[in-house]
Amino acid sequence: MIKETLKQVQPISQKWLKKAWNRLDNLTKPRRSLGILEEIAARVVAILEQESPTLEKKEIFTFAGDHGVITEGVSAYPQEVTGLMVRNFLAGGAGINVLARCAGAHVNIIDIGMKEDLQDAEGLIKRNVKRATDNMAIGQAMTREEAEKAICIGIEMAEQAHDRGTHVIATGEMGIGNTTPSAAVLAALLPANVEDVTGVGTGLDEKGLKKKIKIIEKALKVNKDHLNDPISILAAVGGLEIAGICGLCLGGAARHMIVIVDGFISSAGALVAMRLNPSIKDYLFFSHLSSEKGHRTFFEKQGLRPMLDLDLRLGEGTGAALAMQIMESAVRIYNEMATFEEVGIEPGA
Amino acid sequence: MIKETLKQVQPISQKWLKKAWNRLDNLTKPRRSLGILEEIAARVVAILEQESPTLEKKEIFTFAGDHGVITEGVSAYPQEVTGLMVRNFLAGGAGINVLARCAGAHVNIIDIGMKEDLQDAEGLIKRNVKRATDNMAIGQAMTREEAEKAICIGIEMAEQAHDRGTHVIATGEMGIGNTTPSAAVLAALLPANVEDVTGVGTGLDEKGLKKKIKIIEKALKVNKDHLNDPISILAAVGGLEIAGICGLCLGGAARHMIVIVDGFISSAGALVAMRLNPSIKDYLFFSHLSSEKGHRTFFEKQGLRPMLDLDLRLGEGTGAALAMQIMESAVRIYNEMATFEEVGIEPGA
Repeated sequence: MIKETLKQVQPISQKWLKKAWNRLDNLTKPRRSLGILEEIAARVVAILEQESPTLEKKEIFTFAGDHGVITEGVSAYPQEVTGLMVRNFLAGGAGINVLARCAGAHVNIIDIGMKEDLQDAEGLIKRNVKRATDNMAIGQAMTREEAEKAICIGIEMAEQAHDRGTHVIATGEMGIGNTTPSAAVLAALLPANVEDVTGVGTGLDEKGLKKKIKIIEKALKVNKDHLNDPISILAAVGGLEIAGICGLCLGGAARHMIVIVDGFISSAGALVAMRLNPSIKDYLFFSHLSSEKGHRTFFEKQGLRPMLDLDLRLGEGTGAALAMQIMESAVRIYNEMATFEEVGIEPGA
Repeated sequence: MIKETLKQVQPISQKWLKKAWNRLDNLTKPRRSLGILEEIAARVVAILEQESPTLEKKEIFTFAGDHGVITEGVSAYPQEVTGLMVRNFLAGGAGINVLARCAGAHVNIIDIGMKEDLQDAEGLIKRNVKRATDNMAIGQAMTREEAEKAICIGIEMAEQAHDRGTHVIATGEMGIGNTTPSAAVLAALLPANVEDVTGVGTGLDEKGLKKKIKIIEKALKVNKDHLNDPISILAAVGGLEIAGICGLCLGGAARHMIVIVDGFISSAGALVAMRLNPSIKDYLFFSHLSSEKGHRTFFEKQGLRPMLDLDLRLGEGTGAALAMQIMESAVRIYNEMATFEEVGIEPGA
């Protein structure tokens, strides 16, 4: 399924891109004076291949997973918080619920790798692959088969959304400890020094950060024979929610959807997808620069620019939800602004 | 009227600020993990002094003015475009109209200093002080009385909005050539070197930019005896729309309103207001970093941080309109998120 989906990903249409810029340059404003908004609009038009695209139907996919490496003491919160926060999501009280309401987006919560089995949780999409990863500091976090299974769940989520008529999907995650595997994946894939991609997560002190860096270095060393390709890296030092995000990016790109990438952890998942097929990048919109230290390294190394920089470090999909409002505004600029011809102005510079 | 309004401006309530942070730190997220959104929410609560503030009623004020200095060849567009764009605003086809619709905000268009008299223009707020400023390269742009009259119009606009029950007002402007007086005002008030606050505006080439810098330097030299206080600087090298924006900031702060400042030109107006009373800063939200070169100098010198950085350089109020959506999201985070206590999580770090 992964191979087949990868084959379906095509670069976006240059013809549609040119068409979009032609209209943008004829709207009543100095040329390119709406900066990134114009870039967003052009890419949306080229992805959807529509004269007047709308981003009305929007969905966020928040994948929840736990991490064996938490026993090494890499997080400021205990593992139980993953389950409590998932219940909070389902009750509508978390940051992602509020920001999704602001954006008019539906939130899907997927148990893809939680330790706790929330059997009674209404509304939870139950696709658990494994009840938390294993401790990557002493071996592989999961098998390649488990990683592939989690990627396929992400692909399925994108496909189901597409079948529902959704054009905009966004990544999100919850998982106590998940900045640790994300940093490990980035270190191996960018590649980068561990200290350049490792931050304080939900709130480590300086000593905690040093320890976290050492644990990640140890995990990469222990797993050095398994770091051969993007999926084996994901399996060795990644996480199930990161794999789900990778799959969502992949499935979204294959179906010509707009894919909004949330923050630091989501970028790790998106990077795995981009390494599997570089054309996937054409479909991804990186919503924000997290205040988690390693995110800046990711953007610099990939030559990408995030839409927002608001010192967010919550995850869940919150940055992606905010970006939806910016993107919808960009598309409405494209659809609704008058042209120079319509108002009788010479285009000028 | 200006003196009286200045006296009404009070620093925001520290008691309400503390109250707001107390709630924010108890919402279900790692402490301060929603970064700038939390700072916005805290300040909104402290300005409005409300337990559950809403930013529902929003208005944008786009002041239009022309500039005598245009005869020196400082703009890529001819002066007639001011009138054509104002008609475009009134017809709903400009960037500001689209982004205001996205934000659910009403747009007010004010002729405060246009050269052209749009007598037949329905919906235009006609408060013309002077049919374009005089050429500041050979003398004062306007008299002190004219500058004060324009400031008072801005104050009135804020007061009328307040009386209509509006809590959020935003600045905007239209005026071919107005990055030139804005740069001159910033150079004199920050203070800064002219070349550090002067950019290409709507699209000058390198030669045009050099000429613009020389004209601004000449204007500051010609008017050197009139650069004694913020209002005399505004009169000598400013513009009528810049004065209107100054007044809107002043009037908004005096009435405890949320004031969103648009881009480069609006920042010049806001700076005059802040120089008249530093407490006005507490009420101002700087929406975005314009790609107009001097805007970065403004933020660095003032120690301020803009909310968005999207390479916008359109003006009109477009950046402020976009920021409204971010601010409304921030306030909903404050109002709608569950607390740790409600979901049974220990606050942690």
